[in-house]
Amino acid sequence: MRSGCFFALQRLSKCLNSRQTFVNSCYRSTMALTQVSSNKCAGGFQKVFEHESTELKCKMKFAVYLPPKAETDKCPVMYWLSGLTCTEQNFITKAGSQLAAAEHGLIIVAPDTSPRGCNIEGEDESWDFGTGAGFYVDATQDPWKTNYRMYSYVTEELPKLINANFPADPDRMSVSGHSMGGHGALVCALKNPGKYKAYDATALAASYAGPRLDVLIDQGRDDQFLSASQLLPDNLIAVCSEKKIPVVFRLQPGYDHSYFFIYSFINDHIKHHAKYLNA
Amino acid sequence: MRSGCFFALQRLSKCLNSRQTFVNSCYRSTMALTQVSSNKCAGGFQKVFEHESTELKCKMKFAVYLPPKAETDKCPVMYWLSGLTCTEQNFITKAGSQLAAAEHGLIIVAPDTSPRGCNIEGEDESWDFGTGAGFYVDATQDPWKTNYRMYSYVTEELPKLINANFPADPDRMSVSGHSMGGHGALVCALKNPGKYKAYDATALAASYAGPRLDVLIDQGRDDQFLSASQLLPDNLIAVCSEKKIPVVFRLQPGYDHSYFFIYSFINDHIKHHAKYLNA
Repeated sequence: MRSGCFFALQRLSKCLNSRQTFVNSCYRSTMALTQVSSNKCAGGFQKVFEHESTELKCKMKFAVYLPPKAETDKCPVMYWLSGLTCTEQNFITKAGSQLAAAEHGLIIVAPDTSPRGCNIEGEDESWDFGTGAGFYVDATQDPWKTNYRMYSYVTEELPKLINANFPADPDRMSVSGHSMGGHGALVCALKNPGKYKAYDATALAASYAGPRLDVLIDQGRDDQFLSASQLLPDNLIAVCSEKKIPVVFRLQPGYDHSYFFIYSFINDHIKHHAKYLNA
Repeated sequence: MRSGCFFALQRLSKCLNSRQTFVNSCYRSTMALTQVSSNKCAGGFQKVFEHESTELKCKMKFAVYLPPKAETDKCPVMYWLSGLTCTEQNFITKAGSQLAAAEHGLIIVAPDTSPRGCNIEGEDESWDFGTGAGFYVDATQDPWKTNYRMYSYVTEELPKLINANFPADPDRMSVSGHSMGGHGALVCALKNPGKYKAYDATALAASYAGPRLDVLIDQGRDDQFLSASQLLPDNLIAVCSEKKIPVVFRLQPGYDHSYFFIYSFINDHIKHHAKYLNA
């Protein structure tokens, strides 16, 4: 399965705790955040920050929505992983997530989708490789392995940064996403740190042995990447059935791969996450 | 008052009927619409079309949201007028209006904000004059008066086009907008065709003598254009008070001029329109 129009839920705290000492030592000198923008939205604030990433060795931007509840309480965090070509902007401007996030008291963090400006040869030649296409994996080969470490960035560095700088409850985290980021979310949910080397959600599901998951997937039936056989959700569903991993898979007639599709169903997904995060 | 962060409601059918014969004769040869895009959204369809405008003498795009109800019934239409620098895209991708439009069974039409590609000298030199800055007025001087006829476009040509090509109920129309488009919406609501020469909402309110209006205005208290004294809502409110035009004016603390502000309150505005359109 290459990438999919998927959403997934998983607490990442376990994977974080195991590397906490390492992460702490990394961060002492690089915790500084620069606020790029702040807009009041749905009673809270939609903000964008820039920071020097230790994992990616470049400046990175991320978006964070702070619900009204975050003014007085620690709130759970939902990480949103965006799709190919996206930046931290797409989700926050197009998905219409903030009203539901405010209602359920969730912080939503939306990182960028790749390192930026690393000047690696070939980085900007294709829309689905390199810049804007980090695929939420850690590259293992030169010249990519120094910077292209999006898996470590979204599962370790970024949550640590969020927990240190915002009223986030580190014990209540989840992950969701769209397209490349939907697959990334499934990988984050299924992969225990250090246990798996592959980054294919179907392969990870086949060997998953962690705590119970509750995966909600929406897939547009008229998605051009589905009809081009680039998504292959049937493979994932078959493995999840076999492994008894609960998956609600909704094939939405007429919907495509765009943010109009995300906008149409984001409320259901935020509610799904809130059910566990606010339990 | 130069421009404002405003929304207004008014049935335009009266102003349309008075020019119907003229409009009909103009349209016979130019009704053709070309579909630019179509995305299923919130159970209905978000579409964009292109056409040759007789008023503006250029190709124009507009967006139209068709709620699920439009598959079987005629629906009322809310026209949305966007702000400076916008195209037909901003509202449909950023405002999060479609779920509420689907719920209330409203068609929403969002035109572009000026003629495009007319090659008039000076057209592209400033962000608040010329391209992207039609101000919903009919220009009276050369070299602008041939193309810059956005008032006639949004109050006559476009509604006629919508009524002829979509399941729109021509007797149930309203107008709303943001920033330059909020002022445009007030002008459309207050101006009876042929009666006023000015396009200033406050001046129009001072001499308004039409049927009862119900105007809902949201204004961000931290709007940078408000603090720069470019909006002057107090003038409008004072005149409306004097004239007994009902205005609900909500000064929203912390909110700015952006689409995050629109997104935060669009549901209230669609509900406000639906109250009359579905009455």
